[in-house]
Amino acid sequence: MTVLDPAMVPPRDARAAFRDGLVTPTAGWSAGWAQANLLALPKDRAYDFLLFAQRNPKACPVLDVTEPGEISASIFDGDLRTDLPAYRVYEHGEQVAEVGDVRDHWRDDLVCFLIGCSFTFEAALLDAGVPVRHLERKSNVPMYRTNRACRPAGTLSGPLVVSMRPVPPELVATAVRVTSRYPAVHGAPVHVGDPAALGVADLGRPDYGDPVEVRPGEIPVFWACGVTPQAAVAASRPPFAIGHAPGHMAITDVRDSAYAVP
Amino acid sequence: MTVLDPAMVPPRDARAAFRDGLVTPTAGWSAGWAQANLLALPKDRAYDFLLFAQRNPKACPVLDVTEPGEISASIFDGDLRTDLPAYRVYEHGEQVAEVGDVRDHWRDDLVCFLIGCSFTFEAALLDAGVPVRHLERKSNVPMYRTNRACRPAGTLSGPLVVSMRPVPPELVATAVRVTSRYPAVHGAPVHVGDPAALGVADLGRPDYGDPVEVRPGEIPVFWACGVTPQAAVAASRPPFAIGHAPGHMAITDVRDSAYAVP
Repeated sequence: MTVLDPAMVPPRDARAAFRDGLVTPTAGWSAGWAQANLLALPKDRAYDFLLFAQRNPKACPVLDVTEPGEISASIFDGDLRTDLPAYRVYEHGEQVAEVGDVRDHWRDDLVCFLIGCSFTFEAALLDAGVPVRHLERKSNVPMYRTNRACRPAGTLSGPLVVSMRPVPPELVATAVRVTSRYPAVHGAPVHVGDPAALGVADLGRPDYGDPVEVRPGEIPVFWACGVTPQAAVAASRPPFAIGHAPGHMAITDVRDSAYAVP
Repeated sequence: MTVLDPAMVPPRDARAAFRDGLVTPTAGWSAGWAQANLLALPKDRAYDFLLFAQRNPKACPVLDVTEPGEISASIFDGDLRTDLPAYRVYEHGEQVAEVGDVRDHWRDDLVCFLIGCSFTFEAALLDAGVPVRHLERKSNVPMYRTNRACRPAGTLSGPLVVSMRPVPPELVATAVRVTSRYPAVHGAPVHVGDPAALGVADLGRPDYGDPVEVRPGEIPVFWACGVTPQAAVAASRPPFAIGHAPGHMAITDVRDSAYAVP
């Protein structure tokens, strides 16, 4: 049996594998291709979310928006209902299902928002010599709800969610420099060091994803995270929403370099 | 009588002068402070416009969005109905008025979009030694409707509008480099040279603003322009809209450096 290196799997094949039932975090998959968060909301809530994204651009950089009921997107030549590894379905802010296929939950009035994901810049971090612990461990990135409120928009409000990567002190500046080139996929960190200042009591107990070891001397570095929209769904309780399962992303047909600035 | 240098007038005083009746293009005013385009649309068209902006980010970088009926904005501590030098009022895409005060036209369901303006980076161009002809002539910048269609969104479609500045050949690279640092106010040029390729037949007859001399050897350099939303209004004929008169901008309370990237 051949063991595939997920980094070498092209987006189309990754989507086919997920459509066929594979459930896995997508960190490290399809190196060089941008990944995206998904939030699908009924059309009558779409303006609130698009405005929420405009007001919280670090957490919610919008890469693409579908027409109501559309199941693919200009940056995603697949089926948004089946081609992510896992989804979460929400009713009035409560998660009612986590499934690998949301065709049974689909509605024709859903607008899909694809939002930049920090997995996109991890290849650039590795290229620059910055180790990425959750890639070494083949686990999901740890994510935390913070004590920072997003700017509300209409019916939507909620806390900022962050992802965390431990970085050796001599490489923190490099990590900032490299990721600041990717504003469309969360860009530079929002916070370096002291988790308590973000209201994160225990790095070992993330709200989403898997914990990772922070070795002595390493600095926890926090980036705004595209799970923030789902935290807003949980806090604001719209009648219906679908998101990706955190860390189980849409792998797009856009090169990560397309989202880099000079 | 003291002759004021408009570049030295702070935003609050500029807005007061416009509120008191002064009508002038704002190029060169309040150096160091960001300027913004205005589009006000009824709430039921706001989603279409916000999506249009997301799909056409070079032309429509959204800096701020008001709540329906609100008359100031987080980046504009003035009255959006009176504190710009001039406005255009549209009904079904036809301009029905150009006035210095739109209080008589105001509606409580209007959402105001403030969109980045390339006047914002002109101080940086001057600092870098790039001459800006319309500032030398104390005239408005020339703007042109192009043959490039914007990506439509819902009920909105229309052509890309560009502003033009003639640049000596040896400074074109500098102009690109400097302005690319300001993506929120249109960023790098969309086109360098040959106006005909954009469908602009005669640089001497701009669609908005004033013509400027292009000296022998100078290269016309084109930036996406925040009048694009008004061209979409003219093309798409929403029942009602208000915009600024081209070149007669909202002077904000945000430093232009706040919109610069590293």
